[in-house]
Amino acid sequence: MEWEEEIEERIEIVCNDHNNDDHMMNQKQPLLLRRRINNSSQQAIVGANICPIQSLDYELIENDLLKQDWRSRTKVEIYQYVVLKWSLALLIGLITGFVGFFNNLGVENIAGFKLLLTNNLMLKQKYHEAFAAYVACNMILGAAAAALCAYIAPAAAGSGIPEVKAYLNGIDAHSILAPSTLFVKIFGSILGVAGGFVVGKEGPMVHTGACIANLLGQGGSRKYRLTWKWLRYFKNDRDRRDLITCGAAAGVTAAFRAPVGGVLFALEEAASWWRSALLWRTFFTTAVVAVVLRSFIQFCHQGGGKCGLFGEGGLIMFDVNSAKPSYTTFDLLTVIFLGVIGGLMGSLYNYLVDKVLRTYTGINERGPIFKILLVMIISIVTSCIRFGLPLLSKCVPCPGECPSPPTAGFSIHYDNFQCPPNHYNDLSSLLFTTNDDAIRNLFSNGSDSANAGFQLSTLIIFFVAIYLLGIVTYGVAIPSGLFIPVILAGASYGRLIGTVLDQFTVLDTGLFALLGAASFLGGTMRMTVSLCVILLELTDNLLMLPLVMLVLLISKTVADCFNKGVYDQIVEFKGLPYMEAHAEPYMRNLVAGDVVSGPLFSFCGIEKVGNIVHALKVTKHHGFPVIDEPPLTDSPELCGLVLRSHLLVLLKHKTLFTRERVLTGSTIMNKVKASDFAKPGLGRGIIRVEDLDISQEDMEMFVDLHPITNTSPYTVVETMSLAKAALLFRELGLRHLLVVPKKPGRPPIVGILTRHDFMSEYILGLFPNLNQD
Amino acid sequence: MEWEEEIEERIEIVCNDHNNDDHMMNQKQPLLLRRRINNSSQQAIVGANICPIQSLDYELIENDLLKQDWRSRTKVEIYQYVVLKWSLALLIGLITGFVGFFNNLGVENIAGFKLLLTNNLMLKQKYHEAFAAYVACNMILGAAAAALCAYIAPAAAGSGIPEVKAYLNGIDAHSILAPSTLFVKIFGSILGVAGGFVVGKEGPMVHTGACIANLLGQGGSRKYRLTWKWLRYFKNDRDRRDLITCGAAAGVTAAFRAPVGGVLFALEEAASWWRSALLWRTFFTTAVVAVVLRSFIQFCHQGGGKCGLFGEGGLIMFDVNSAKPSYTTFDLLTVIFLGVIGGLMGSLYNYLVDKVLRTYTGINERGPIFKILLVMIISIVTSCIRFGLPLLSKCVPCPGECPSPPTAGFSIHYDNFQCPPNHYNDLSSLLFTTNDDAIRNLFSNGSDSANAGFQLSTLIIFFVAIYLLGIVTYGVAIPSGLFIPVILAGASYGRLIGTVLDQFTVLDTGLFALLGAASFLGGTMRMTVSLCVILLELTDNLLMLPLVMLVLLISKTVADCFNKGVYDQIVEFKGLPYMEAHAEPYMRNLVAGDVVSGPLFSFCGIEKVGNIVHALKVTKHHGFPVIDEPPLTDSPELCGLVLRSHLLVLLKHKTLFTRERVLTGSTIMNKVKASDFAKPGLGRGIIRVEDLDISQEDMEMFVDLHPITNTSPYTVVETMSLAKAALLFRELGLRHLLVVPKKPGRPPIVGILTRHDFMSEYILGLFPNLNQD
Repeated sequence: MEWEEEIEERIEIVCNDHNNDDHMMNQKQPLLLRRRINNSSQQAIVGANICPIQSLDYELIENDLLKQDWRSRTKVEIYQYVVLKWSLALLIGLITGFVGFFNNLGVENIAGFKLLLTNNLMLKQKYHEAFAAYVACNMILGAAAAALCAYIAPAAAGSGIPEVKAYLNGIDAHSILAPSTLFVKIFGSILGVAGGFVVGKEGPMVHTGACIANLLGQGGSRKYRLTWKWLRYFKNDRDRRDLITCGAAAGVTAAFRAPVGGVLFALEEAASWWRSALLWRTFFTTAVVAVVLRSFIQFCHQGGGKCGLFGEGGLIMFDVNSAKPSYTTFDLLTVIFLGVIGGLMGSLYNYLVDKVLRTYTGINERGPIFKILLVMIISIVTSCIRFGLPLLSKCVPCPGECPSPPTAGFSIHYDNFQCPPNHYNDLSSLLFTTNDDAIRNLFSNGSDSANAGFQLSTLIIFFVAIYLLGIVTYGVAIPSGLFIPVILAGASYGRLIGTVLDQFTVLDTGLFALLGAASFLGGTMRMTVSLCVILLELTDNLLMLPLVMLVLLISKTVADCFNKGVYDQIVEFKGLPYMEAHAEPYMRNLVAGDVVSGPLFSFCGIEKVGNIVHALKVTKHHGFPVIDEPPLTDSPELCGLVLRSHLLVLLKHKTLFTRERVLTGSTIMNKVKASDFAKPGLGRGIIRVEDLDISQEDMEMFVDLHPITNTSPYTVVETMSLAKAALLFRELGLRHLLVVPKKPGRPPIVGILTRHDFMSEYILGLFPNLNQD
Repeated sequence: MEWEEEIEERIEIVCNDHNNDDHMMNQKQPLLLRRRINNSSQQAIVGANICPIQSLDYELIENDLLKQDWRSRTKVEIYQYVVLKWSLALLIGLITGFVGFFNNLGVENIAGFKLLLTNNLMLKQKYHEAFAAYVACNMILGAAAAALCAYIAPAAAGSGIPEVKAYLNGIDAHSILAPSTLFVKIFGSILGVAGGFVVGKEGPMVHTGACIANLLGQGGSRKYRLTWKWLRYFKNDRDRRDLITCGAAAGVTAAFRAPVGGVLFALEEAASWWRSALLWRTFFTTAVVAVVLRSFIQFCHQGGGKCGLFGEGGLIMFDVNSAKPSYTTFDLLTVIFLGVIGGLMGSLYNYLVDKVLRTYTGINERGPIFKILLVMIISIVTSCIRFGLPLLSKCVPCPGECPSPPTAGFSIHYDNFQCPPNHYNDLSSLLFTTNDDAIRNLFSNGSDSANAGFQLSTLIIFFVAIYLLGIVTYGVAIPSGLFIPVILAGASYGRLIGTVLDQFTVLDTGLFALLGAASFLGGTMRMTVSLCVILLELTDNLLMLPLVMLVLLISKTVADCFNKGVYDQIVEFKGLPYMEAHAEPYMRNLVAGDVVSGPLFSFCGIEKVGNIVHALKVTKHHGFPVIDEPPLTDSPELCGLVLRSHLLVLLKHKTLFTRERVLTGSTIMNKVKASDFAKPGLGRGIIRVEDLDISQEDMEMFVDLHPITNTSPYTVVETMSLAKAALLFRELGLRHLLVVPKKPGRPPIVGILTRHDFMSEYILGLFPNLNQD
């Protein structure tokens, strides 16, 4: 038993804590270069809660069990897998399309009912009652949305695009794609948009699509007893990533009816990893969504009233029917000017949104009641502006007779509001309507005599009101997309410029509104190709392409000089450890060994159960190196990396424990299946170390870790520059990157790099002088 | 001097041949597991020549010299670099736009002149003379194009897209992006397209754009004394890759006037690596191209005759002005049927193109004269079909009076040809015209009374003729794009189906032609999103989107069951070692150590000059491991990897040689600059080992390799599965991947994996039984 004692001693030395656990830090630890604790960026704000962050496992885990599983897969099973993957893409498309339609139906009917009620009171000249009814409706809707968010799923607040983006980058924050989030996102978004807030349903639809994909991909929710056994092949993060990318694209398509734009959005903004095959699958999904939406719309149009108040509105498809635009050099200069100012305003928007968000978080953290109160305050402010400002503005006589009396109460350009007959209120046609209709009015052709123009004062008032409302609304506890507020502000800004310059330019004011919207979108979101295609698909006019491209490029360039895109900003604000595609310049001056955090816990190839349980309890790490020691090998050598989740599954199988330190490789295969180690979805599938029930006797036994050890983790040498290691980490989507020593003869592993070790706040905390360079 | 002898002995043992050189193979070599030679796929067919293949260096080479260079870069230099990169993108856009316009101008004028000449003879009823003139013109144009290809740049033959695709995958075959190739590609393409061949100018434009980008990126050609010193920052493969991606996108845009389609093409088909930042830069480049083209076209239209015969044709923008298409379930079934048949025909097309290509290569290899003869034969066949078949078809009376007499001789739908007055020949309006005009005619609206319809027989004859001509034309020694032949065949097939089903469907025959073209494109090229967007941008009708998507998805799915896409097939045929994005299934059953080729040459940290020269002479390898030995270190340890090109530069600096084995790290920095090691462009910049003039005395001296050794090459353990290693190799775009032993105590490196070691022909050659699984 001499060697056993020796190993015991080695565990005291080698198998040490790789964690932020304080009491372990005081042990003597000569193994590592330095002792560092990385406790920055291990947690994120999701909703207003603080929750721990994990990474997703995109690496091919090569352990004996899974290798055997691959080898034993038959051709039928592989075929089944391919068919299932396409079927899931189809299902995601169908369900997202349906949800998108349902969302529109809900918004149009609720908002329609509300506006009809108010308008009818207005027609009877009961202005006070109308105002009260309007404010009350909005407040009830807003409070309901906030209550859903606050009590059921705080993660459903906000746009959702930053969360999806972070997930696809490999960040697994609790419940961001959970079924409860999906539920709240759908209903909260309907209530919020119908409640007159300056929010969009586009961002929430992206999140909804991703949630649907996640729910399908994880084989239903075990918590809600919705599971399908035949989905077990997808119980890994690689396949889920693909599905969620499809889901995000489907969401954009459902929101904008833009199938190509959806694919490009997923590619440009959402996804961090991409393959050509994924492009195809995403395209298929968005095509399905487009077909589903089309069918539903046809059904509604044919069926006269089957869809309630669902009119031409919803499912925005704006119509900028300007003919082939020709333009002069002066027009081009105007467009460039528009782009520059749009970029400036866009980056200012981002700056202000960030400030407001930080303020609101302080309020939201105090509890659900405060969340709801904040929403109600914003609701009242919004209602007052939407109702009050038009009341103050003066009426305009209609050119000739005012068309079609406003019976339906919405989607009408010549809005009567408080005006005498044959007059209309142009501000109320922008403010006192749904956001989609306001955009449609702003984009309407200026030279078309059937359309009413807008007064300059109306546009200025509307622009200021919407710009500010958009900023103060984001961050309250309702699902709130950013696309619509930005498009509204941008379109009114563009139309304003267009109206001012009407004498000097041949471009239509409706086209100016579109270009203004493009400039604001470019300035806040910093996307290019996808925005361009989405705008083209929305407005159905390809000939404006060059101008839209120009404006987007200019506004993005200008805005990039000041700050990050709004989604990146929110990701950063939430503390989600997002891996950028490029390495920061200072990373070239550091090597992997400089930042690797420690001290490190490691296991022997055949480890005592007690040691494993102890390590799992005192650390929160998700990967542990396994080192084979004499007498199994001649000298200590790195066997591989074992995951916490796999260890927990192994520890549940007590029949695998042995009294002696022996290799049980072949027998283990008969007792456990690879599918036992598959990654469970959210909910109750996750085993925690506290749930393990291991007797004191078992603690003294041994277990062979070789069958579950990933024998070929990716490694880098400690002298590799951090920039190069970051590139490897990002490109391959790793969770753990093992750092090995340069010189032989030292212990075979220096430490483990995780996502958190590449975050700038951590690195700049270690080396404060880097920041000055 | 005892240790020196010891090291000498070690070199005999460790520093052994990693190469396919036979005489080295007979030395005793106990270091490696196996001795294998990988001499498959080290060479490719470019044009009809066999040329050696290298990989490009996308890895961050971290040696002391370059690290010092990074650190010494000032902020001004970094800013300069960014500005330069954008300026280059702008320049690529401008030049590609200009070349695209010039190309069209050339084609339209030459083809216009030819058709005018023939038509005038026809009007005088001189049919024999007309035929002779037509055949002679075509043959002269064809022979000129072939002569350019055969004598100046064989690499310019064919589409060029496979070569660009391979380059962007990291394959550097000689002269595929050389200035001579650019020259021949531009002029050869003009001559070939004007010469009436069933070839397109789109593929060549992509290649042209890539060549322009390469020329700019490498700072001009040293061979032609076109160099700009301030471009030296771009003397590395990473920056060139980005520029060439922009160039490829610019080429598509210049060919189709499809800026968004261009970006998507580069993304979906051309590029193997992609970042979000690149999307933006590519988009900028294509926007520039679109603006340049638009300006030139306006210039031509305004200037009455300034552009010669350059009419409405060229720069294809087809007009399928069908109104909002509504469709029934029957129509959908028709479209699905169209897609299935299109997929089948597309994969058959690929199969036949491959067969013909293999046949032609045998002919082309015999010499330039044979190449030219082959082109002339095809030219005569094409001319006979183009002229003869319409002669045989019967004339159709015009509905009412035939519009506008055919004076210009081209771009006329009602083609008089040999017919009596007030009759027209519908087959000649497809065959006896430019390819662009034929497509325009096929896409024309069937219900529009101003357009002539096509007889069923005409469409059948045309379809068969073009399908076969397209197949036999690809592979001859002229620049020949595949888009146009495929669109022509597909459009006639679609229009044929549309004409047959005209009674039963509400869809327009012009729309059927478009869907047919989409189905053929999907069936041959297997792209989805990019084709969809290109077709939409070409035809300027977004409302057809769902149908086009459907057809593309179906035809691609069907065709994928049979064979690869045509570009992949050509890449494979040419022997270009393309790394696929996914690993083959059998790679999961192999480990890296199984395929690593050997034996291996390695150097010591301070190596004798003679040994280096010997190694460089007897091997063709481009990377050599550097191993530090006692007494520099305690035991042999891997120092890193040194590139052949860097060694050659080092050997030119004889002042760095030392008489003793000493470290010269710090002094070397003063004698050489990092820019000396920058990768030169094509031409005379490359040093060959034969050019080194090293005296016998120098051979006995030592040189310190540490400053130029990449101290952190990517490594994998020998037991990593080949699939996982392939993923690493592909995702990071590596050139060399070092395989290290699992057990300590063995020599620190097992071997080096290169691109060639992942090729299936090599692996299946080593393990023939894998193929059966």
